[in-house]
Amino acid sequence: MKKLKRSGRLVDMTHFLLQHPNQLIPLTYFSERYQSAKSSISEDLTIVKSIFESEKTGYLITVPGASGGVRYEPAVPAKEAEELVQSLCQKLQDPERLLPGGYLYLMDILGRPRLMNDIGRLFAGLYRETQVDAVMTVATKGIPLAYAIGNHLDVPVSIVRKDHRVTEGSLVSINYVSGSSKRIQTMSLGRRSIQEGAKVLIVDDFMKGGGTAQGMAELLKEVKAELVGTAVLVEATTDERVVQDYISLICLEEVNERTKKIIAKPGNFAKHLR
Amino acid sequence: MKKLKRSGRLVDMTHFLLQHPNQLIPLTYFSERYQSAKSSISEDLTIVKSIFESEKTGYLITVPGASGGVRYEPAVPAKEAEELVQSLCQKLQDPERLLPGGYLYLMDILGRPRLMNDIGRLFAGLYRETQVDAVMTVATKGIPLAYAIGNHLDVPVSIVRKDHRVTEGSLVSINYVSGSSKRIQTMSLGRRSIQEGAKVLIVDDFMKGGGTAQGMAELLKEVKAELVGTAVLVEATTDERVVQDYISLICLEEVNERTKKIIAKPGNFAKHLR
Repeated sequence: MKKLKRSGRLVDMTHFLLQHPNQLIPLTYFSERYQSAKSSISEDLTIVKSIFESEKTGYLITVPGASGGVRYEPAVPAKEAEELVQSLCQKLQDPERLLPGGYLYLMDILGRPRLMNDIGRLFAGLYRETQVDAVMTVATKGIPLAYAIGNHLDVPVSIVRKDHRVTEGSLVSINYVSGSSKRIQTMSLGRRSIQEGAKVLIVDDFMKGGGTAQGMAELLKEVKAELVGTAVLVEATTDERVVQDYISLICLEEVNERTKKIIAKPGNFAKHLR
Repeated sequence: MKKLKRSGRLVDMTHFLLQHPNQLIPLTYFSERYQSAKSSISEDLTIVKSIFESEKTGYLITVPGASGGVRYEPAVPAKEAEELVQSLCQKLQDPERLLPGGYLYLMDILGRPRLMNDIGRLFAGLYRETQVDAVMTVATKGIPLAYAIGNHLDVPVSIVRKDHRVTEGSLVSINYVSGSSKRIQTMSLGRRSIQEGAKVLIVDDFMKGGGTAQGMAELLKEVKAELVGTAVLVEATTDERVVQDYISLICLEEVNERTKKIIAKPGNFAKHLR
């Protein structure tokens, strides 16, 4: 790379950090990339850090020492997070979403990668101080959110399936009771897909009783991994929740098929915002 | 936002543009955000543009006129793209991937959001001059790549399913012949999920005969949408391909279950790199 002035370095450095969230970048990487002294690079990083932190769009963590460097941790400013969730609540209350059986059509929301990306960044910020080694979700609708979070945390995603597929290799399976249908179902995870001892964040688009999340937690025990949190986009109010420790963005307080009334409020995430 | 010096504006502007790929941002947005004259903003953008373009990490397109502004179009530099594909080929050739029936285990690759994000940016760059209004894929394995591409192109994703799910609303279904199994299968798409007349890019993780991609193309006809391209991560060599116009990153030339030999070469994407 040709030698750049400070202005050029700041643009390229910001670009590079945003493409490598939650990765420790040694200072020598930048000083070689820009053929600049470490002292200049440190000054550049101070500018980047002050802008990220004053705008609360993320954190720049400096790790001292020989194996040290700098790490960009994405976040969404509290005000922006609240506006995002408010706009989602508005969207959810549209009676056109009602499907037979009291289900809500969500694919217009889940089908927007940019929105999922913003929500993923918000969750990554909420779990910033939790050690997360992997994200786990269940096919199909949880996948977009799981990848958006995994991308910002820079960790792999494991997909639990409700069918058996030959291309996954050897599987570990459990039976679980889905909270909403009360039916006994089977879910499976590829054995290779989560490492023993990994600290895992469970992600799903929707949670009512929590039977699916609980099933995933049991799968984690089977593969000797550790559950460190559960992140859901939408939770529905229920008296029979089996999962307690979770963060939700939206709480569906009422879905009335007869009156077509849907009430969506912000979930419990605000308690975790800083 | 408090008034920033040029160095601060460059950091924040780069951050903002990267979070809003393929969106037209009016110059007035930046001049209000930074309380700066449009002439200063234009100078800032010239610096950003020159860095993006000299590093080939993307393009900054200026649209003149009253409804104009600036648009960041992500891309991956040709050299980086070639290195990325080479490293994927290396990974694919590992005999440990072989599963019964000659399938390859891909979840360690598909399960890495950061890698999918880089591949998505690469494809977004390849389709930069194609008008794409939506991305379509088939559940489950195509989803991560489809979202990564959709995110960089800033377009929605539609997911075709091989099962019927009540939460999708009314469906349009077709029968198709899967190239590899020669069995007749059914695939369905939520009617609400693609608009009439939309220009659609089909995305999948794997293509052999192309039966699945052809099935998706037929679904597009059913909903009166237009196919503008097909992007696949891995294509397998075959004499009976029904899809011709596609871009692949990797071509699987040989998978021999007996000798455990796998040969993976770069796909046809290089012809489309600039």
